[in-house]
Amino acid sequence: MALKTSEEYVERLKRMKPNVYAHGRKIRRDDPILELPINTLRLTFDVVNDPELKGLVVTKSHLTGEEINRFTSLNLSIEDLYTQQEMKRRCCHRVGGCIQRCMATDTLNGIGVVTKDIDDAKGTNYHDNFIEFLKYYQANDLVGSTAQTDVKGNRKQRPSQQEDPDLYLHLVERNKKGIVVRGAKNHITMGPYVDEHLVIPTRSLRKEEGDWAVSFAIPADAEGVKIISRIVTPRPRIKLAAPYNNYGVSDSVLVFDDVFVPWERVFMCGEWEFAGRLALTFAGFHRHSYCGCKPAVTDIIMGATALVADYNGVETAPHIREELTELMIIAELVYASGIAAAARSEKTSSGIYRPRFLYSNTGRYLAGVNIYHEYDILAAIAGGLPSTLPPEEDWLDPETGPYLEKYISRKPGISPDKLHRLYRFISDFSCSAMGGWAQYAGVHGGGSPIMEKIGIRSEYDLESKKRIARYLAGIQE
Amino acid sequence: MALKTSEEYVERLKRMKPNVYAHGRKIRRDDPILELPINTLRLTFDVVNDPELKGLVVTKSHLTGEEINRFTSLNLSIEDLYTQQEMKRRCCHRVGGCIQRCMATDTLNGIGVVTKDIDDAKGTNYHDNFIEFLKYYQANDLVGSTAQTDVKGNRKQRPSQQEDPDLYLHLVERNKKGIVVRGAKNHITMGPYVDEHLVIPTRSLRKEEGDWAVSFAIPADAEGVKIISRIVTPRPRIKLAAPYNNYGVSDSVLVFDDVFVPWERVFMCGEWEFAGRLALTFAGFHRHSYCGCKPAVTDIIMGATALVADYNGVETAPHIREELTELMIIAELVYASGIAAAARSEKTSSGIYRPRFLYSNTGRYLAGVNIYHEYDILAAIAGGLPSTLPPEEDWLDPETGPYLEKYISRKPGISPDKLHRLYRFISDFSCSAMGGWAQYAGVHGGGSPIMEKIGIRSEYDLESKKRIARYLAGIQE
Amino acid sequence: MALKTSEEYVERLKRMKPNVYAHGRKIRRDDPILELPINTLRLTFDVVNDPELKGLVVTKSHLTGEEINRFTSLNLSIEDLYTQQEMKRRCCHRVGGCIQRCMATDTLNGIGVVTKDIDDAKGTNYHDNFIEFLKYYQANDLVGSTAQTDVKGNRKQRPSQQEDPDLYLHLVERNKKGIVVRGAKNHITMGPYVDEHLVIPTRSLRKEEGDWAVSFAIPADAEGVKIISRIVTPRPRIKLAAPYNNYGVSDSVLVFDDVFVPWERVFMCGEWEFAGRLALTFAGFHRHSYCGCKPAVTDIIMGATALVADYNGVETAPHIREELTELMIIAELVYASGIAAAARSEKTSSGIYRPRFLYSNTGRYLAGVNIYHEYDILAAIAGGLPSTLPPEEDWLDPETGPYLEKYISRKPGISPDKLHRLYRFISDFSCSAMGGWAQYAGVHGGGSPIMEKIGIRSEYDLESKKRIARYLAGIQE
Amino acid sequence: MALKTSEEYVERLKRMKPNVYAHGRKIRRDDPILELPINTLRLTFDVVNDPELKGLVVTKSHLTGEEINRFTSLNLSIEDLYTQQEMKRRCCHRVGGCIQRCMATDTLNGIGVVTKDIDDAKGTNYHDNFIEFLKYYQANDLVGSTAQTDVKGNRKQRPSQQEDPDLYLHLVERNKKGIVVRGAKNHITMGPYVDEHLVIPTRSLRKEEGDWAVSFAIPADAEGVKIISRIVTPRPRIKLAAPYNNYGVSDSVLVFDDVFVPWERVFMCGEWEFAGRLALTFAGFHRHSYCGCKPAVTDIIMGATALVADYNGVETAPHIREELTELMIIAELVYASGIAAAARSEKTSSGIYRPRFLYSNTGRYLAGVNIYHEYDILAAIAGGLPSTLPPEEDWLDPETGPYLEKYISRKPGISPDKLHRLYRFISDFSCSAMGGWAQYAGVHGGGSPIMEKIGIRSEYDLESKKRIARYLAGIQE
Repeated sequence: MALKTSEEYVERLKRMKPNVYAHGRKIRRDDPILELPINTLRLTFDVVNDPELKGLVVTKSHLTGEEINRFTSLNLSIEDLYTQQEMKRRCCHRVGGCIQRCMATDTLNGIGVVTKDIDDAKGTNYHDNFIEFLKYYQANDLVGSTAQTDVKGNRKQRPSQQEDPDLYLHLVERNKKGIVVRGAKNHITMGPYVDEHLVIPTRSLRKEEGDWAVSFAIPADAEGVKIISRIVTPRPRIKLAAPYNNYGVSDSVLVFDDVFVPWERVFMCGEWEFAGRLALTFAGFHRHSYCGCKPAVTDIIMGATALVADYNGVETAPHIREELTELMIIAELVYASGIAAAARSEKTSSGIYRPRFLYSNTGRYLAGVNIYHEYDILAAIAGGLPSTLPPEEDWLDPETGPYLEKYISRKPGISPDKLHRLYRFISDFSCSAMGGWAQYAGVHGGGSPIMEKIGIRSEYDLESKKRIARYLAGIQE
Repeated sequence: MALKTSEEYVERLKRMKPNVYAHGRKIRRDDPILELPINTLRLTFDVVNDPELKGLVVTKSHLTGEEINRFTSLNLSIEDLYTQQEMKRRCCHRVGGCIQRCMATDTLNGIGVVTKDIDDAKGTNYHDNFIEFLKYYQANDLVGSTAQTDVKGNRKQRPSQQEDPDLYLHLVERNKKGIVVRGAKNHITMGPYVDEHLVIPTRSLRKEEGDWAVSFAIPADAEGVKIISRIVTPRPRIKLAAPYNNYGVSDSVLVFDDVFVPWERVFMCGEWEFAGRLALTFAGFHRHSYCGCKPAVTDIIMGATALVADYNGVETAPHIREELTELMIIAELVYASGIAAAARSEKTSSGIYRPRFLYSNTGRYLAGVNIYHEYDILAAIAGGLPSTLPPEEDWLDPETGPYLEKYISRKPGISPDKLHRLYRFISDFSCSAMGGWAQYAGVHGGGSPIMEKIGIRSEYDLESKKRIARYLAGIQE
Repeated sequence: MALKTSEEYVERLKRMKPNVYAHGRKIRRDDPILELPINTLRLTFDVVNDPELKGLVVTKSHLTGEEINRFTSLNLSIEDLYTQQEMKRRCCHRVGGCIQRCMATDTLNGIGVVTKDIDDAKGTNYHDNFIEFLKYYQANDLVGSTAQTDVKGNRKQRPSQQEDPDLYLHLVERNKKGIVVRGAKNHITMGPYVDEHLVIPTRSLRKEEGDWAVSFAIPADAEGVKIISRIVTPRPRIKLAAPYNNYGVSDSVLVFDDVFVPWERVFMCGEWEFAGRLALTFAGFHRHSYCGCKPAVTDIIMGATALVADYNGVETAPHIREELTELMIIAELVYASGIAAAARSEKTSSGIYRPRFLYSNTGRYLAGVNIYHEYDILAAIAGGLPSTLPPEEDWLDPETGPYLEKYISRKPGISPDKLHRLYRFISDFSCSAMGGWAQYAGVHGGGSPIMEKIGIRSEYDLESKKRIARYLAGIQE
Repeated sequence: MALKTSEEYVERLKRMKPNVYAHGRKIRRDDPILELPINTLRLTFDVVNDPELKGLVVTKSHLTGEEINRFTSLNLSIEDLYTQQEMKRRCCHRVGGCIQRCMATDTLNGIGVVTKDIDDAKGTNYHDNFIEFLKYYQANDLVGSTAQTDVKGNRKQRPSQQEDPDLYLHLVERNKKGIVVRGAKNHITMGPYVDEHLVIPTRSLRKEEGDWAVSFAIPADAEGVKIISRIVTPRPRIKLAAPYNNYGVSDSVLVFDDVFVPWERVFMCGEWEFAGRLALTFAGFHRHSYCGCKPAVTDIIMGATALVADYNGVETAPHIREELTELMIIAELVYASGIAAAARSEKTSSGIYRPRFLYSNTGRYLAGVNIYHEYDILAAIAGGLPSTLPPEEDWLDPETGPYLEKYISRKPGISPDKLHRLYRFISDFSCSAMGGWAQYAGVHGGGSPIMEKIGIRSEYDLESKKRIARYLAGIQE
C-alpha cells in the first residue's frame, strides 16, 4: 500500500542519521523542537482519511495504478492541475498557512518535464532515472525538499565568476559510480524533516558553467549533508488550545560538503542549456501552487476579519464590508489566474501538463504584492488589541483574570472565552514572529513579485500589441 | 444564408422609419453623422471573411445548423465562452475600442436562461417566444441594443414609489394581442443603428411591482419609440488617414411613448420574482464579455505606450518596462478571470452555459478600477505632446509644417511622419472627447466597480471563511 | 499706476505684430479663436478689484513701492510664499483650472535668484539686467511665458551631440549689441497672448555646451519668433451659460528663427555651470505653485462630486463619503507640502525666498500621481450620464427637450435645469477634449512625477538614514 | 534643578508600591522584565546631555523659567511645535521606534487648552489645578501615561447604555476631598513605568453622561489602580550587541477599582459638553506628534533598505531606487503635514498653540495607511533571509558558524559580521513579535486611518467646494 500513515513518516525520520543543527544544538529528528513543523507534514498524511479532503488528496499513480498521495503525483491533465490547486487551498486552511509539502510535488513535475527535454535533445537517460526515483518516492509516500536557491555570493557576478566557486552548488568530481557536489542551498523549507532533498539549479547558465548545471535527489541524511535550521512556531498556549498553534515551519541552510550522488539519482549533470529551463519550469509549477495556497491565507485573514467584526457588532459597517470584499477579490483573482494557467496549460513531451507560465505568474504576483496589505486590513479592523492583549498567564491568574474577562466584553452573547480565543488567535497569527515569517513568505516564497514581473514580460508578446497600435494609428511598419 | 454583409445591414437601416434625434436634428439612419458609429458595426459583419478572425466569428446555429455570426449565438459549452471572450478581444483591437455588438449577444443569452426558468416555474411559454425570436435574429444576422438601465428618478425610492411611474419603464396595458409599455431607458449603446431593441429590467422587484417586470424585443423604429442620441467620434483627419479615426459610438435616451409589443415578442410580463434574476444574468454574461474587451483596450494602451517609448529611444528605461509590465498584468488578470468564469461555468436548464458570476465580476472589477490608471500610464510615458501637438492643419500649412517636422525629430530612423501619426493617434485616443467617453465607459460599462463589489459579496460564502477562522482559533460554534 | 486693466492688456495684444499660427491660419491676437484663453489672463487683471481676492493679488513692488499685481512680484518672505500659494488656488477656482499667469512669476523668481548667483561667481551683471527688466515688467503689468522645454530630439544624446544642433535652443552669434539665437521651445503655455517670452535652459549642461546656456526675455512678436499654437477650449454653449465654458488655454511650439536679443535683456549667455541651476530653481518655484493650483483642481472635482451626490440624494452613502474624504486628503496634503516648502524656504543672496525643493517636489508629486485617480472618483460617482448626455441642441429642440427634462428627474426639489447644468458641466469638465488636456497637464505640468522623484532623491540625505540603520544594528562604519 | 537623570527616574520607580502584573506575575518596577521598556524612557532623560539632541530636548519652563525637558513642556509658539516634531523624530531614531514619552506631553497640552475653555465657560478652576500639577510635573521631570481609551464594551451602545456601566470609566462618588472613579482603560503605553496616569475621556458625551466626563492625574501606584501589562521586546542577543535590542515597550489594561482622586488633581468632572473636545484636542496634538515619530520609523526602514541594497551591491538597481524614493516621499509628506499643522496652528485662550487639526490628521493618515506598505518594501528588497536566518546560537556554534560565515558572503569588502548584523537587525525589526507590535502601532497609535478620515471630513468646509462647482456650472444657489 503506497499510502503511508503519519506515524510511519515520523518513524522514518527517527531512524535517520543526525545531521540537523538547530538553535545552537545538533538534534535528532524526534527532538521536541521539531514537533510543530512536523505536525504540518503529518496532516498531509492524515487527510487521506478525511472525508472532506480525501477526494482531493488521494489519486492513482500512472506508473503503478496504486493509490497514492497527490503530493507525490504528476499532473497529467488539466483536471489534475485544477485539483492540485484546490487541494493546496484546502490543506492550507487546516494548518493556518503553508502546507509545505507541495515543494517536492512541483519540483518532481519540473524535473519530469525537463529530464525528458534533455533526453530528447541529448540522448541521455535522465528521464528514466527520474521515473525510477518517482516510483520509489510514490511507493514510500516520501517527503522531499526543494533545494534550489543558491547562496549566490556577489550578486553582480555569475556563478563562474565568484571568488569562491562554492557560492553556487557545483560539481567537484564525476566518476563511474556518480558525482560529488559542493555548495549550499538557502531558505530550504522543511530541511530537518524531509526524506529526500531534490536539488535543482537556481538560474540559467552559460557554456562555461556546466559544473553548476546539476540536479539530483539525495537522502536527507546523506554523508556530507548538513542542515542548519531556523524553527518558527506560533506562541505556545497553556490552556487555551487552538489548532493554529499546533503547526510550525522551518527553513534551513543546506550545506553540501562534498556529497556523493550515485548516477541513478542524477537528473542533470553538465547540460547547462537546460539549467534555466529547469529552474523556470519548477517556478512555473510552484507559482501555480501559490495560486492555491495564497488564497487560503487570504481566506484565513478574511475569516478572522469577518469574525472580529461580528464579535464587535460592526459587521455591517460599510468600510468593513468594503475591506472584506477587497479580500474576496484578491483571493479569487489569484485563484482565477491559477485556473487560467491550468485551462491554458500545455502538454509537454513527458506527458506532464505545464501550467501557462503567464497566468501562474500574474496570480503569484497579485498575491505577492497584496500580502502586507491583507495583514493591514486585518489589523485595521481588529483594532489594537491583538498587539496589547495581556498574555494568557494573566488570564489564568486569579487576581487579574476576572478583570480581563470583565473588561473584554463586547456584543451581548459573545462570551469572554470566545473573545479571548479570537483575539489571541489574531495576535498569534498577525502580531508575532510567526506572522512576520508568513509576511516574508508571502512576498518571497516561490519568487518575489519582481521575479514574476520579469517572468511575465520576458515571455509576453509585446510586439503584437505594438502592431495593433501601429495599425490603428495608420503607421506602415 | 444567415451571414449577411455589412452592405445588407446598412441597407436595412436605410429602410427604417426615422425616429432618431441627434444633436438637435431628426435624422435618417443614413445621415453622415452616423457613419463612424455604423462603421464599428459593419466591421462585425466584414470579419466573417477575415482570415485571422473568421474562425472566431463564424459558428453554427444550434437551431438550424446554419453558419451564423457568433454575435448572434448562444453559449452552449465552456469552449463557446472561451471563444466569445477571445473574439471580443480581437474585434476590439480592430476598432480601437468598444465593438458594441456584444450587448445583444449577452442579452440574448440572459433572456435564454431566464425565460426557461420562468417557464419551468410558471408554465408560461416565454422560452418558445425567445427561441422563435432568436431564429429570426440569427437568420437575418441582426443587431440589437440592450435597453436595460431605467432613468431611475429618485434614487432613494423604488420603482413603484416614484412620483412619476414612468421613471422605470412599465406596463400600461395588456390585451389579447400584446402589451403597451411606457418609460425610458438610458445610456443605450448603438441606439440609432440597431435593428431591434432588447428590453430587460434594471433591478430586482417586489410583488407589487409586477408592472415593471417586463422584457421584450421591439423593432428599433416601432411606433412610439424615440431615440435621442449623443454621437461620439474621434477627431476628423484631413490627410493623415488612420483606422482609429474611422470608428465611433453613440449612446441614447430611448423613449417608449406607449409602445405596443405583440405577445410573441414578450419574454417577461409581470413575473417580478425573475426581474432581478434576468438583470443579473445579463450582467453576468456582459461582465464576462468585458473580460475580453477590456484587455483589448489595455492592449491598445500598452501598444501605444511601448511604441512611443520605442520612438523616443527609451524603451529599455526601467520605469517604462515596469509600467508596461503592469499593463500586461492588468490585461491578463482580467482575461484570466474571464477564463476562470468560463471554466467554472454552469450549464443551465436552457442548455446555455452561464459563466461563474464571481469570476465575471472579479475580472470586470479589476478592469474598472484600473482604466484611468492605464490612461495615466500612457500619458506619463507619452509626455505632454499629445495635449499640445498643433492641429493637422498646421502640419499641412507650408509656412509652419516644415518647422513642426524639423522639431518633432527623435530617435534616428523614425520619420517625422511616423512620429506625427503616433502622437496624433495618442492625442485622439487619450486626450479628446472620444478618450473621455472611453474612460467613462471603462468605469461604468457593464456595471461600475461598486456594482461588482456588491455582486461579489452578495454571493460569496463568507460563512465558510469564518468557520476556518473559528476552527484555527479553537472556538466552538 | 502699475496695475493695468484687462482692457489695457487686450489692447496691447492687438497692437502686436502677427506671428501667431493656429489651426492652419496665421492670426492676429484679436482673433476670436483666442477669446477664451485670453479670458483666463484677463481674470488675473480683473481680480485686483475683487473684494475676495484683491488682498491676495495686490502687493507692493519692493523696487518702486508701487502697488503691483502679485503675479509680477518676487517672493521676499515666507509670508509671500504662503500668499502666492493661496492666490493661485483661489484664482484657479475662478477659471475652473489652470490660471496660467504664474508661469512668468516663477520664472522671474528663478532668474532673480540665479542671475545673482552668476554675478557673484563671475562678476557679470545679469542681475542688474534682470532688475531693470523686472521694473519694466511690473510697471506695465506684463504677462510672460516660460519658454523652457526644448524639443530635445534624440533623447539619448546631449544637446551638443544632436545631429541638428537646433534641437536645443542655442546661441548662433554674439555681437556688441546682443546675441542671436536659434531653436524651438515646446509646450509653451499662453504662447499667443503673452507680452514677453522668458527663455531659460531646459537642463544642466557641460563645459562644451556653453552655446546652449542662454536665458533672456524677448517681446512676443519679435522678429524671427513664430508661435504655432493649439487652442483648447471647453465645448461651446448655446443658451446654457456657465463660467467654466468661458475660459481656455493654448500651448505652442515657439520657433526662434535667428532671433536677436539685445544684451540688456540677456540673463545668461555661456555660463553653462548655471544652466541646470536655473532650470531647477525655476522648477522649484513652479512646483511650489502647483501646490496651490493642483489643490484647486481637486477642489473643483470634489465640489462637483459632492454636488452630484447631493442631487442624486446619495451624499451620505458611505463609499461616497470615503471618496470625498480621499479627495480632501489629496488636496490638503499637496497644499501642506507647499506650506512646508515655504516654512522651510531659504533666503537666497538675491533676497528672494526659495521654497524648499524637497517639499515643492513631494507636493507636486502627490498631485501628479493622483490626477487621473481624481477624475476616476468623479466619473465613478457621477455615473455614466456625463458621457451619454444628449447635446444641448436636443434640450432646446421642442420635440425632444421635454422628454429629456422629464427623464432626468432625480431627488425632489432639484429642477431639471440644475441637473442639466451640473451634468453638462461635469461632461464638459471631465469627458471632453478640455478634460483630456487637464489630465495631461495634471501629469506633466511643472514636471511629471518621475521628474519629482528624481528631484527628491537627488538631494535627499540618504546617507544619514543608513547611519541610523547602522547604529541600531550595531554596525561600525 | 528640574532636569532629572535617568537614574533618579529609575529610583522613583523602585520606590513605588507594587501594583503591576505582567505575564502571570505581580512584579516590582525593578523587575528585569521591565528593563528594556524602561531603557526607552531613560533615553529621554539622557539626551539632555547629548550634544546632537540637547538643543531640541532642553527648553525653559514658562512657569518657572527653569530648564526643563521638552517632553514636560507646553507648546507656546509655532516654533515650539516645529521643535516638538523634530525632537520626536530624532529621539525615535535612537530607540528604533516609539519614544513613548510624548503621550503625556500631548495630553498635558490638551488638558491645558480645554481646562481653560471649561473655566472660561463655567467659572470652574480646573486650569489652576492643571497649572499647579504641571509645575510639579516639570519640577520633578515626571513621566505620565495617557489613559484615554475605554474598553468600550458593546460598540453599538453609548457609555450610559452599557449593561455594565464600568465599561467606560466613570464617577462613582464625589465628596469634599475629591472623587472616586471606576472602570478600565485599555492599550495604555508605558503603564508599568510611569509616575502618573493622565486620565481623559475617550469620546464626546451627552447631558445624561456627566458621570463619564472625568479627567484627572493620579500617581501610578495609587490605591485601587492595577496595571496588567504585556511587555514586548526585541529578541535577546547573546554576543551580537545592537542598540535596537536594548529597547522595549509595554501596553497595559489599567484597572481603576474605586480609585480616589483629590480635587486638586481633577481637570474635568461632569462637564460633558467638553468631553469630546478634550478627547479631540489631545488627539490633535498627538497626531501632530505622529508627524514626527512616523517619519522616524520610515527613516529606519529606509536606512535598512538602502543598507541591505548596498551590501548586496544592488543599490543602483532602478526598482530599488524607486522604492527608496517612495519611502522618502512618504516620510516627508507626513513630516510636511506636521509642519503645515504647526504653521497654521491657532493660539488658544490658554496661550497654548494648537496644531491645525486638518493637517495633523492628513499627516497621521498618510503614515497610517502606509506602514504595512513600508514593511513590504523592506521585506521585498531585503529578500527572504531575515525570515530564514539561523539563530545567533548557530553562528556561535563552532560546527555550524564557519559554514554560515562562508555562505552569507556578498559584495566584496563587506565582512560576514556586518552582513550578519544587518540581516539580524532586519529580522528582529521586521520579522518578529516586536515588528508585529510596531505594525499594529503604526496603524492604530494615535487613532487609526479611519479615525483621521472622520476627523478630516467632520471639520472640512465641503460646502465651499460645492459653491465653486455651482459657480463654474452656472447654477444659481
